[in-house]
Amino acid sequence: MCQPVLVSDQRETSVCVLGLGLIGGSVVRAAADAGRTVWGYNRSSSAVVDATAEGFDAADDLPAVLQRAQREHALIVIAVPMPAVDSVLTAITEHAPDCALTDVVSVKAEMLSAVERHGLAARYVGGHPMAGTSESGWAASTADLFHDAVWVVGTEADADPIVWSQVAQLALDCGSVVIPAESVEHDRAVARISHLPHLLAEALALSGAAGGDLALTLAAGSFRDGTRVAGTAPDLVRAMCEANSTALLIALDETVEVLKAARMALAAAASTADLVTAGHAAHTRYTHRQRWDITDITPGDDGWQDALRKAGRRGGALRAL
Amino acid sequence: MCQPVLVSDQRETSVCVLGLGLIGGSVVRAAADAGRTVWGYNRSSSAVVDATAEGFDAADDLPAVLQRAQREHALIVIAVPMPAVDSVLTAITEHAPDCALTDVVSVKAEMLSAVERHGLAARYVGGHPMAGTSESGWAASTADLFHDAVWVVGTEADADPIVWSQVAQLALDCGSVVIPAESVEHDRAVARISHLPHLLAEALALSGAAGGDLALTLAAGSFRDGTRVAGTAPDLVRAMCEANSTALLIALDETVEVLKAARMALAAAASTADLVTAGHAAHTRYTHRQRWDITDITPGDDGWQDALRKAGRRGGALRAL
Repeated sequence: MCQPVLVSDQRETSVCVLGLGLIGGSVVRAAADAGRTVWGYNRSSSAVVDATAEGFDAADDLPAVLQRAQREHALIVIAVPMPAVDSVLTAITEHAPDCALTDVVSVKAEMLSAVERHGLAARYVGGHPMAGTSESGWAASTADLFHDAVWVVGTEADADPIVWSQVAQLALDCGSVVIPAESVEHDRAVARISHLPHLLAEALALSGAAGGDLALTLAAGSFRDGTRVAGTAPDLVRAMCEANSTALLIALDETVEVLKAARMALAAAASTADLVTAGHAAHTRYTHRQRWDITDITPGDDGWQDALRKAGRRGGALRAL
Repeated sequence: MCQPVLVSDQRETSVCVLGLGLIGGSVVRAAADAGRTVWGYNRSSSAVVDATAEGFDAADDLPAVLQRAQREHALIVIAVPMPAVDSVLTAITEHAPDCALTDVVSVKAEMLSAVERHGLAARYVGGHPMAGTSESGWAASTADLFHDAVWVVGTEADADPIVWSQVAQLALDCGSVVIPAESVEHDRAVARISHLPHLLAEALALSGAAGGDLALTLAAGSFRDGTRVAGTAPDLVRAMCEANSTALLIALDETVEVLKAARMALAAAASTADLVTAGHAAHTRYTHRQRWDITDITPGDDGWQDALRKAGRRGGALRAL
């Protein structure tokens, strides 16, 4: 059995990464750099060949990889695309049912549901490193991808303190700071700051193009910046927005109401005062935001999950355990 | 009388600039660099003192400056803020009623109406150099502000070919390319590519801030770029958006409808396919836009205004007269 055990240093826990794409590959590299014992699995053998050639421990035999995780009490990191998650969870249930489990998928509530369906929730603490590039695959992975990034660690009301600490330590070892947040809170936050920006960029691009070549000829900095992420591959934008549709719907509805109110004020009084004043104040709050260090909460103490979540809501981050 | 006269080279026309702020000051510098005879007026004497100290011809006596324009058949460039336009037009009616007239105000239909109210429309061709910085005033003006910028030259159905050529030549002498466009078309285009981006940036900033410190802590590139212009001073945003409220209302209404349709698809089928596919195609059209040179239309020929407007609508620009 690989029951998580509280060790004096969570860094003694070995790490098993499933999926050697940009994120999973970068976890392997970063964990290895940090001195952690780490090995990986990838379904297609080309990434395995490339990783092995670079001296990393990788294989395309999922049962064997998971059986080793079970033997070595490893922390398993799910780093496959969302559509592949179910089959990976089935294999974990069979070959490594007692291992601590995390993931790097960008939407957390849907992932938590999948883990619950497979009866693995007791050992699961979700994760989301907020890092990425426009490239993908093992070849694009780097050991410093997560340096100075924020890594959300799922902090449900019933989170296991030992698993939570193992996941947080991995994030820290990869060079990130840890932001504690409940899955649903995480999804609502990224809907606002990552998925809604994509939809607004698409809508702005449409408005510009509707103005024809004259409008596009006159377009300058405000249009270029406002539409930049509309250049992202449609499949990627759809995948992340649609996986988070519940939270995105809330943010989108709010924004439609804000713009309808702005439309009324513009039609009635040729005024944009309310929107512009409030928007500028909100932007000032964003540019003046300050992350502060959470230092006084120990996983396992009474009410630690709630204390961490409250700290995360107020902009707190962990730099060390 | 300073009836515009067709000269073999429009560059013999001297230039009288009213208002020595960022744009007007830069016109003075650029026109002087191009070898044009140019002088300026400013209401406050500090800019006049500074400009004079740098060797430019400047004064704070508006009647005297305009009487010289009348004597020398100058092209008058109105470069004062919109609220000051009426009093300047009154002075022109009194002291330089026969001069050719242009302006650098960012909204063209409202400016045209003001000129018509003062009975000066026959000598007027509007202009809008699409250049600027976040700074203002004579001290911020530079001779190269308009280099490689686009300069919209108002091309109404009854535009005078001689005045039009004088205005276009000034834009070319300042280093810009000339985009011919009707006032109303110009205003609709800039509503889409300049004013709407500001309102969407304000709305996005509001949505992020509504997510609290957690959302702002997680915000990365897409939020930063999508909200950048919400950092612009509210007074500036309001001034440009509200002066163009009629055209902005059309663009805003369209965008609200686009987002409402996206909301319905997201709620009904968790799909963003329509918006993302169309938005990406629109962005591709923007990034692949190509400006082409208008070379075969001569102001004064039959139907020249309509031919130039059609060329402008198709992305055409003049690099020379």
